[in-house]
Amino acid sequence: MKILFVGDVVGKIGLDTLENYLPQIKQRVKPQLTIVNGENANGGKGIKVEDYQRIQVAGADVVSGGNHIWDKREVMDFIDDPGKKILRPYNYPGKNVPGRGCIEIKVNQKKVYVINMQGNALMQPIDNPFYAFDELLPTLDKDAIKFVDFHAETTSEKIAIGNYLTGRVSAVIGTHTHVQTNDAHIFNKETAYLTDVGMTGSYDGILGVKKEPILNRFLTQRPNKFEVDDDGRMQIGFCVVDINDQTNNARSIHNYVINPDNKKFLD
Amino acid sequence: MKILFVGDVVGKIGLDTLENYLPQIKQRVKPQLTIVNGENANGGKGIKVEDYQRIQVAGADVVSGGNHIWDKREVMDFIDDPGKKILRPYNYPGKNVPGRGCIEIKVNQKKVYVINMQGNALMQPIDNPFYAFDELLPTLDKDAIKFVDFHAETTSEKIAIGNYLTGRVSAVIGTHTHVQTNDAHIFNKETAYLTDVGMTGSYDGILGVKKEPILNRFLTQRPNKFEVDDDGRMQIGFCVVDINDQTNNARSIHNYVINPDNKKFLD
Amino acid sequence: MKILFVGDVVGKIGLDTLENYLPQIKQRVKPQLTIVNGENANGGKGIKVEDYQRIQVAGADVVSGGNHIWDKREVMDFIDDPGKKILRPYNYPGKNVPGRGCIEIKVNQKKVYVINMQGNALMQPIDNPFYAFDELLPTLDKDAIKFVDFHAETTSEKIAIGNYLTGRVSAVIGTHTHVQTNDAHIFNKETAYLTDVGMTGSYDGILGVKKEPILNRFLTQRPNKFEVDDDGRMQIGFCVVDINDQTNNARSIHNYVINPDNKKFLD
Amino acid sequence: MKILFVGDVVGKIGLDTLENYLPQIKQRVKPQLTIVNGENANGGKGIKVEDYQRIQVAGADVVSGGNHIWDKREVMDFIDDPGKKILRPYNYPGKNVPGRGCIEIKVNQKKVYVINMQGNALMQPIDNPFYAFDELLPTLDKDAIKFVDFHAETTSEKIAIGNYLTGRVSAVIGTHTHVQTNDAHIFNKETAYLTDVGMTGSYDGILGVKKEPILNRFLTQRPNKFEVDDDGRMQIGFCVVDINDQTNNARSIHNYVINPDNKKFLD
Ligand SMILES: [Fe+2]
Ligand SMILES: [Fe+2]
Ligand SMILES: [Fe+2]
Ligand SMILES: [Fe+2]
Ligand SMILES: [Fe+2]
Ligand SMILES: [Fe+2]
Ligand SMILES: [Fe+2]
Ligand SMILES: [Fe+2]
Repeated sequence: MKILFVGDVVGKIGLDTLENYLPQIKQRVKPQLTIVNGENANGGKGIKVEDYQRIQVAGADVVSGGNHIWDKREVMDFIDDPGKKILRPYNYPGKNVPGRGCIEIKVNQKKVYVINMQGNALMQPIDNPFYAFDELLPTLDKDAIKFVDFHAETTSEKIAIGNYLTGRVSAVIGTHTHVQTNDAHIFNKETAYLTDVGMTGSYDGILGVKKEPILNRFLTQRPNKFEVDDDGRMQIGFCVVDINDQTNNARSIHNYVINPDNKKFLD
Repeated sequence: MKILFVGDVVGKIGLDTLENYLPQIKQRVKPQLTIVNGENANGGKGIKVEDYQRIQVAGADVVSGGNHIWDKREVMDFIDDPGKKILRPYNYPGKNVPGRGCIEIKVNQKKVYVINMQGNALMQPIDNPFYAFDELLPTLDKDAIKFVDFHAETTSEKIAIGNYLTGRVSAVIGTHTHVQTNDAHIFNKETAYLTDVGMTGSYDGILGVKKEPILNRFLTQRPNKFEVDDDGRMQIGFCVVDINDQTNNARSIHNYVINPDNKKFLD
Repeated sequence: MKILFVGDVVGKIGLDTLENYLPQIKQRVKPQLTIVNGENANGGKGIKVEDYQRIQVAGADVVSGGNHIWDKREVMDFIDDPGKKILRPYNYPGKNVPGRGCIEIKVNQKKVYVINMQGNALMQPIDNPFYAFDELLPTLDKDAIKFVDFHAETTSEKIAIGNYLTGRVSAVIGTHTHVQTNDAHIFNKETAYLTDVGMTGSYDGILGVKKEPILNRFLTQRPNKFEVDDDGRMQIGFCVVDINDQTNNARSIHNYVINPDNKKFLD
Repeated sequence: MKILFVGDVVGKIGLDTLENYLPQIKQRVKPQLTIVNGENANGGKGIKVEDYQRIQVAGADVVSGGNHIWDKREVMDFIDDPGKKILRPYNYPGKNVPGRGCIEIKVNQKKVYVINMQGNALMQPIDNPFYAFDELLPTLDKDAIKFVDFHAETTSEKIAIGNYLTGRVSAVIGTHTHVQTNDAHIFNKETAYLTDVGMTGSYDGILGVKKEPILNRFLTQRPNKFEVDDDGRMQIGFCVVDINDQTNNARSIHNYVINPDNKKFLD
């Protein structure tokens, strides 16, 4: 099974970029399952139901999340709707966390779990993601494909999770830094891994956001309102993981960016 | 002028890897200047004079640093030696910081400054790197090439510095995360940029270090001694920046990794 | 000279508390100079001109600040007004920081500098406060009293600054944690010191803010809007430093709280 | 029942200070139970069996811990010895954490639990302490006294835990900052609370450690070896909680320091 994973969609231009490129990408890749990270879809912070719907109509089967998933209160209106395939990180603390951190879907006859987990190194001190996997994975169907969006800041925690889950899940794809890394590979011929898949939206801003307020924050250390760089040129970061449906091991992983400096994928 | 930049050499296996690959890489790339980051050369933390010498003999003209440059006291024995081309981050606070953050060298007739600067977002609160550049750059020869190793944790601070220095330096190459990113490009046809160039050393460990103690740290949050993974397979991360000697603008930037899963560069 | 210093006024109830207690306190203490920290006066974050005025009318000669001083944009309307005695931390980076970090006033014939400085350990990485003092102090009149509000998180940075300034300023009083410490003393018979003076406002909330959202933040790690606990009972934290006008050395320092459990000061 | 709690013993001078003052303090207070925090007993970091023994012989019934409890490997030799009454924070992650976070003792006929818990705000991201209490408390005897050493950095997390446990435990005493606070009170006539009890050891250093390396760390941001200030003058910080054995509610809490500037307790 081919699974297409697209990095964090940032703001209106991120949605525009997704609508522009996702159909072409899918036509070439022909994935059986498409997952898009949407934690920044609404103005760079959070997601509303209309953003979710645009992402879905553009071609996503599942929308994944991260630390920003909670930023717009309106997410509460649909995050628990069983008809909406939206994830939040599994390991937020407490018993009644809204939403789901793991979604089961059927692709043809094959069961796939999409899991969203978040790191806690240099981030909020939520539940330890290593133990959260130890708790979650035994509850899932052994014969299913497990695909992980690991949303984390540091490279050490991400690679550590990749090692920890080797042979236990089919793929671990990192998100959150918004910059794609160049380290896609398969651990032990079992688990596909990429430290970060990058982002979708403005190519000219800083991580999808207008340059000026970010620069001003570093220069002044005083509060600065960030705004999505909706007038920028477009970029999209994604990867394709091919998984053996019999063994649930990854066969290949390839990562791509499309931006004004790099249109190789479209050739 | 072609400048070759090699990411953080980690421990004995990092030095072995450098000695193994650097000559081949230089033969193909034919750089006029070679810079290697050495902050982790001695057992993963710091650098001693014998490590410096191995890096130099392997083919480096300048050895760059980072937050770990201070970790072995023996660095004090040679960091101020004018005959040693070793850098520490420019913006450590105070008036009498040992060593240099900017080194001038002549390549044929052309003057080149190699600058090492460190971020302070999610790291030690050293001097603001943006203002440090504002202070340093006007003191340098306008007609020289300026090449920056920006050692920082977050992608936002790195891309912000890349934007801030566009048109003011020839290249900004990130280090510290030990994972190469896939975003090499030239800002405004002037300044070559790469968020992180990656590392040199064990391919099987976590950022060059043995897996077990890193995993144990995440699992226990108790002290764990890290050791370099000297028995691992080798990887090396590097990039090549071509700079127009007349305008000091970058003409191209290409990033590469060599590891057991990716030998494309050697083809 | 007796100087009265009152800890962070938090929200409407903080202003009410100040108006309620400050006149009584001044009647007993009979200070020549009164300084009140106002960084949280407006709804717990920032300060507007009407808050400044209430604090002044209540009896403050100088209003000091901290990291939250910037939180309401309206502070820009008066922070540069030479007629307003309001401080922001001196060591925010850059050349054109709005406002002043050091204010000179005459008390009878004696010159007094009130200085507001901020730490950078476990806080924003603003300019190093140690070097900022090295730069500022030599520019000030040697014969004047210097009184410091050091706004910082960690006890180590606060005590370190107290040691660093011993013999160079008359008093270093800490703010920011909103909890008064029990360590008032005089370093080397020269410099009065208190790690934190505490806060002014609700006694029933958490640091002046309603309990529920704070508890929810710890329990959920998701965004929670904080609100000032305007219905709580009142507390005020303050200290009195007596300084020898001839030597500028501190003679004594006494710290006090008034709250429903502790009315000793009023006896 | 009167319980005496003594703050973090730092290094050799801390042990000397304890031996010097604890007998006198006990003679005056006449506590039924004495608890001493020992996480810094060995050279400022960690504890060995001989330090434990000195603390015990000096008069402690239970030795409590914190983040530094693990720093000397030799702690492993006795942390699991049922005959040794030593605690480590309860909420370190994983199933087989060495040692105990809760110790039950009998004082006359009354059962008392001493619990050591650690915060995770601006500290290591260990398990959420709020939920750890929710899990632990129901497993304990309802009719017993519960006394908590909450080892944490921020005042907000400490006061939040104090509120969270009101009516559920008899006392919450904070440690870790090494500076005693001036906010002892009883929440809702049930739970005694103090944000931090302070430390035991050198009065002249910074948090028990020699000044120079701490100052150098702030001035250089480079590695500096800390050493305990064994030549300093002595200080000790402690508190006394009186608990009603029938209701397990606190009747009173009083905090004290003894140091060269403050000998009031000894009068
Ligand atoms: Fe994101
Ligand atoms: Fe994120
Ligand atoms: Fe490194
Ligand atoms: Fe580094
Ligand atoms: Fe405050
Ligand atoms: Fe503050
Ligand atoms: Fe301690
Ligand atoms: Fe501690």
